[in-house]
Amino acid sequence: MLDIPFQKHTSRIQRRVDQLATVTDEKGTITRTFLSPAMEHANHLVAGWMREAGLETREDSVGNLLGQSPSSDAPIFLLGSHLDTVRNAGRFDGALGVILGIEAVEILRSAKVTLPFSLAVAGFADEEGVRFQNAYIGSKTFCGLLTSQELLKVDREGQKMLDVIEQWCGYKFSLPCPTFSRDELSGYLEVHMEQGPVLESEGLALGVVSAIAGQLRCELTWTGKASHAGTTPVGLRRDALAGAAEFIRSLDKASDEFTGLMATVGRLTVEPNVSNVVPARVIHTLDARHQSDSVLYEAGKWIERRANEIADSLRLDFRWEVLLASPARKCDELLSRKLLDAVTKVTGTSRILPSGAGHDAAILSPLYPAAVLFVRCRDGLSHHPDEFVSEEDIGMALRATIEFLRSWEAP
Amino acid sequence: MLDIPFQKHTSRIQRRVDQLATVTDEKGTITRTFLSPAMEHANHLVAGWMREAGLETREDSVGNLLGQSPSSDAPIFLLGSHLDTVRNAGRFDGALGVILGIEAVEILRSAKVTLPFSLAVAGFADEEGVRFQNAYIGSKTFCGLLTSQELLKVDREGQKMLDVIEQWCGYKFSLPCPTFSRDELSGYLEVHMEQGPVLESEGLALGVVSAIAGQLRCELTWTGKASHAGTTPVGLRRDALAGAAEFIRSLDKASDEFTGLMATVGRLTVEPNVSNVVPARVIHTLDARHQSDSVLYEAGKWIERRANEIADSLRLDFRWEVLLASPARKCDELLSRKLLDAVTKVTGTSRILPSGAGHDAAILSPLYPAAVLFVRCRDGLSHHPDEFVSEEDIGMALRATIEFLRSWEAP
Repeated sequence: MLDIPFQKHTSRIQRRVDQLATVTDEKGTITRTFLSPAMEHANHLVAGWMREAGLETREDSVGNLLGQSPSSDAPIFLLGSHLDTVRNAGRFDGALGVILGIEAVEILRSAKVTLPFSLAVAGFADEEGVRFQNAYIGSKTFCGLLTSQELLKVDREGQKMLDVIEQWCGYKFSLPCPTFSRDELSGYLEVHMEQGPVLESEGLALGVVSAIAGQLRCELTWTGKASHAGTTPVGLRRDALAGAAEFIRSLDKASDEFTGLMATVGRLTVEPNVSNVVPARVIHTLDARHQSDSVLYEAGKWIERRANEIADSLRLDFRWEVLLASPARKCDELLSRKLLDAVTKVTGTSRILPSGAGHDAAILSPLYPAAVLFVRCRDGLSHHPDEFVSEEDIGMALRATIEFLRSWEAP
Repeated sequence: MLDIPFQKHTSRIQRRVDQLATVTDEKGTITRTFLSPAMEHANHLVAGWMREAGLETREDSVGNLLGQSPSSDAPIFLLGSHLDTVRNAGRFDGALGVILGIEAVEILRSAKVTLPFSLAVAGFADEEGVRFQNAYIGSKTFCGLLTSQELLKVDREGQKMLDVIEQWCGYKFSLPCPTFSRDELSGYLEVHMEQGPVLESEGLALGVVSAIAGQLRCELTWTGKASHAGTTPVGLRRDALAGAAEFIRSLDKASDEFTGLMATVGRLTVEPNVSNVVPARVIHTLDARHQSDSVLYEAGKWIERRANEIADSLRLDFRWEVLLASPARKCDELLSRKLLDAVTKVTGTSRILPSGAGHDAAILSPLYPAAVLFVRCRDGLSHHPDEFVSEEDIGMALRATIEFLRSWEAP
């Protein structure tokens, strides 16, 4: 057994998370958006830590930061996550995975552990998609998946993504190839806070992600007829809000039918929205997620059918518009099994759970074997200044990562 | 039998309704608000019609227009309604009752019918309450019920009601006594479009109002917890919108429990109202009406209890705030029975129904015997430019009014 001072390393992760949290575009908050001054500053800071760990650093044309072990012929194993944040973010989302990855490299180097692969750490430049309302610019570029369509998107100041990128990198940008071929990159591990309440509710520090859920995002419109709240008997009403309400309650039933389904109505508007007028129209979103594409598809059909039944029974017109249908991304089976073994060794527990939120691993997973290690957070809270992961749990994640890396041999 | 050319009189009512509809504060719409230039113009026009019908006219300090038969010792029987409108109104709401009242006076005068009472017609200056967000300024003043509190209300231009009244009437305004004592005014009949779909759905031209419904207006607040739509399993959510939705659907059950109850959620807002966030808070109105105060009270309790059960079962915090509780106003029994007899004689049908909307009769009814004759409208539509009452139905209402007046002897 190696004698690793985990406490010291964990404390340094915590310190660096705190230090990175001071790097922001908007004072008093944590806000780092794609290619902003704060992101440049963050890359500079993190690149220094990478070099301390013996990694050679470089930035690609969109600001992805990559730290690689000095050249070797061994295939690369990548650790990492993203360095950008939402507006007024917490300090752990993304940052934890990058900083913990660097610490893992440092530990293995200090301990002179020889691995059958070469370690690298990535800090992706955009996962949250705040600036261009277009998530994963970083990992998509890394994987050669960014499209010319996306380059035309504009930010709040009206600047085109392409212009912002070229101004930043200083040369004519053309859509890049993947940074690594499939042969060069043997795997990717992303350590990330859960951003949900499952691990906490079960008293677990760590969990291994089975898949990043597929998502169906729809807009539903119920159209009835505005009428006087005092003079229109219930039987003569066509109340759009009654339809929406019945629909919302039916989602519980959908969750019973389809285990693991998350279905949410988060945004809803009523017209004319006047207290004494029976609502004429209600428009709302539906966000449905599942780790299995076929289950999500079946659930979507079930929900749409139910919505149509409700519309019929309440004499409402009904429109169902699909805004987004993104497939689930399964994590690599072998990688995840090895990761789970490491978690079990460190924590004594073995929990596999899907991720309802998206992560860079979702972009990498079709090209490279990818796994995600979830770390418990407080109260399921994320994208909020009060976001919290305990130092103890960070320590657990670090131990599990080391354990995993020592056990992993690219197949 | 009198030989009355009803067709001619009905046509004149229709013509006058159309003519009055051209009197507006906002070109291209029908908009006449309290003491506006259009209301002055309307009073001038209608006063001319009153005088043609042999009535002496006067305006009180708030612009109520009163046409009275030349002095006699007989007690007065009052016909009428209001001459103000909502913004972008239809042409029948209020106007019909005043214009039809004048025509009835004209018919009986032409036919030299002697009645045991003296006829008068009122055109109230404010029923809709648009200008000061304070309904019934006209009939409240007529009944001596306007309060000094109400006089302090301000309109959109920041003008106090008292100042507006004094500027209009030209003298120092003090809260007035009722225009007529209980002895002087033996009854009031208001002919009004239904503003609801009941008569039309039953194929009836006319109906007699049993009572003007009492109203309970509440604001309900459901507080749960914002959480990520993709990462928070249904069992760990505290979804405020789920509570509101369950509540809205429970109102159908309430309508089954309490026959005649109208319960409506018309205004609803969601926080934070973002598609991928489980709603943290929902605030919505409840508008509940019934012609019986005791039933409305019981229904209110039932609904509140149900809301609390829903909040408990979904682990939500819940607040129930009563904004308004106005009692029902029963129409005069004897008057309404006589009116129903007249309706039956004219139409062959006898329908009694509550009024869910408020009318000037609600203000007069505690002081004077009052009755309301409802006239079928198209599609339940009111407060809208497409508001429609057929000339045929106006003719029926006119015949029933004449029939009623000839049968009525103040008790």
